[in-house]
Amino acid sequence: MRRHRRRPSSEFGSDSEADEAAGTMKCVSCRDEYEPRDAGTCRECYEEASETEEELKREIEDLKSKVSFLRFWTPFDHYHHRSTPCFSDIVLVASDDDSGKPASNPVPVSAHKAVLAFTANEFEGVPLSLTMSNWLASRSPVFRAMLENEMEESLSGTIKISDVSYDALRAFVNYLYTAEACLDEQMACDLLVLAEKYQVKHLKTYCEKFMVSKLNWESALVNYAFAHQHNAKNLLDAALSLIMDNMDKLSKREEYMELVEKDPRIVVEIYEAYLSKQVNTAAHKDSPSKS
Amino acid sequence: MRRHRRRPSSEFGSDSEADEAAGTMKCVSCRDEYEPRDAGTCRECYEEASETEEELKREIEDLKSKVSFLRFWTPFDHYHHRSTPCFSDIVLVASDDDSGKPASNPVPVSAHKAVLAFTANEFEGVPLSLTMSNWLASRSPVFRAMLENEMEESLSGTIKISDVSYDALRAFVNYLYTAEACLDEQMACDLLVLAEKYQVKHLKTYCEKFMVSKLNWESALVNYAFAHQHNAKNLLDAALSLIMDNMDKLSKREEYMELVEKDPRIVVEIYEAYLSKQVNTAAHKDSPSKS
Repeated sequence: MRRHRRRPSSEFGSDSEADEAAGTMKCVSCRDEYEPRDAGTCRECYEEASETEEELKREIEDLKSKVSFLRFWTPFDHYHHRSTPCFSDIVLVASDDDSGKPASNPVPVSAHKAVLAFTANEFEGVPLSLTMSNWLASRSPVFRAMLENEMEESLSGTIKISDVSYDALRAFVNYLYTAEACLDEQMACDLLVLAEKYQVKHLKTYCEKFMVSKLNWESALVNYAFAHQHNAKNLLDAALSLIMDNMDKLSKREEYMELVEKDPRIVVEIYEAYLSKQVNTAAHKDSPSKS
Repeated sequence: MRRHRRRPSSEFGSDSEADEAAGTMKCVSCRDEYEPRDAGTCRECYEEASETEEELKREIEDLKSKVSFLRFWTPFDHYHHRSTPCFSDIVLVASDDDSGKPASNPVPVSAHKAVLAFTANEFEGVPLSLTMSNWLASRSPVFRAMLENEMEESLSGTIKISDVSYDALRAFVNYLYTAEACLDEQMACDLLVLAEKYQVKHLKTYCEKFMVSKLNWESALVNYAFAHQHNAKNLLDAALSLIMDNMDKLSKREEYMELVEKDPRIVVEIYEAYLSKQVNTAAHKDSPSKS
């Protein structure tokens, strides 16, 4: 990169040079005058940075169009257009209880074995080129095992999903086709449970991100217990650190008493985490007097 | 945003203030010293810009993982793993001539009707939420018409692709599953032809971009004729402007003579474009003396 020439500060003349005398200049971005102490970048670096930003935006546009090309047409669209077949070869049925018995008058959700079972790869979200290792990957390894091994579900052409509402099942299948879901707190919980059960890692991460973004002190304990139950590491850590910032209020909460009743080991883990944090950081917070 | 306080440039003291006296400062990016005339941004704007860049990079990571989730597992992977079924319900066969007769011992390419025919949407690459309009969209409207209308291809379960090599067909089907293709000049041409024939807009754009990037004066005329034949607007424009920058050399080229023989109307269009450009911009270039 060109080095900036230095001139003896004696030879002044034009207006801009008068500014130099005053040691002030204009920011090309916010147009504010600023002083050397507030200096950011030189013009060259500013222009390079702008180019980089443009490149990143172009890459984002390319990826968006790639997503919209790959994003699948869900069978639901066919409900509006029965004239057009969707070549679906499997149906999923929601059953409200754990027995797997279908709910009264369940609406079947039609789908494609190939979509439920296969995807190119989702290893840490890094796209791989086509390699032998791809065959390991799957949108849902669980569905894939069901369908490949000609288990009951594959033969009967029906997969019963127990303990889930029709809306959640529909949103779940829709996600497998589109990688999109419209979440609220309840739906995020329902989908995370399904994602955990059927090992759809991408959806699980998606729900966890949403739940972490909604996390607050009021909901921290419930979310901590939920994350514990469904191995949601990110949600667990976020909830735990929120709890540890409010240890003094912890034991007063109703959910706390319930949790001590229901699953005391989880409560113990909170205190253990808090204590080890104190030891490690030699924090100057009050120790939990109520423990 | 905080306004930068200005101080009378008289009260100097510390080292950095001595710099102010000299009217020089360090760029936080390249660490170069620069003068007010080379000023880029103030520190605040520099920090904001850095944050924006980080956000864009995060968005790119999210989109990449979305692509790798949606990206389909191609049937080719099964050739290595015959143990695992891929639930394919259609095969494509390459035939070398236009008659559609299969080539001697053609290797069938197995695929899924649902993948060939359907995708959520690819309207200008802007992802739509699930709407009625989605049913209009398709990876290939042509395949979709074949398969939905129970034409011969759908009933026989075989689609004959005429006038294409096995490698090109395989790359074409692979793109429908993965939105990825490994291109060289020849493959880009072959895939663009298939993309045009089966109306796979996303692939056509992809090939055009590649061909434009490889464009030079030597290949401009051939590419121009090719783009003309296959309605590749971007490639056409790029090739035409390259040709118009070299009008003086145009008529000496062998491809030019061939083109005058084969399709003189295309050559006429070049001259028309050149002339109207001259009129519009009143360009000072030499007019094509050989025309």
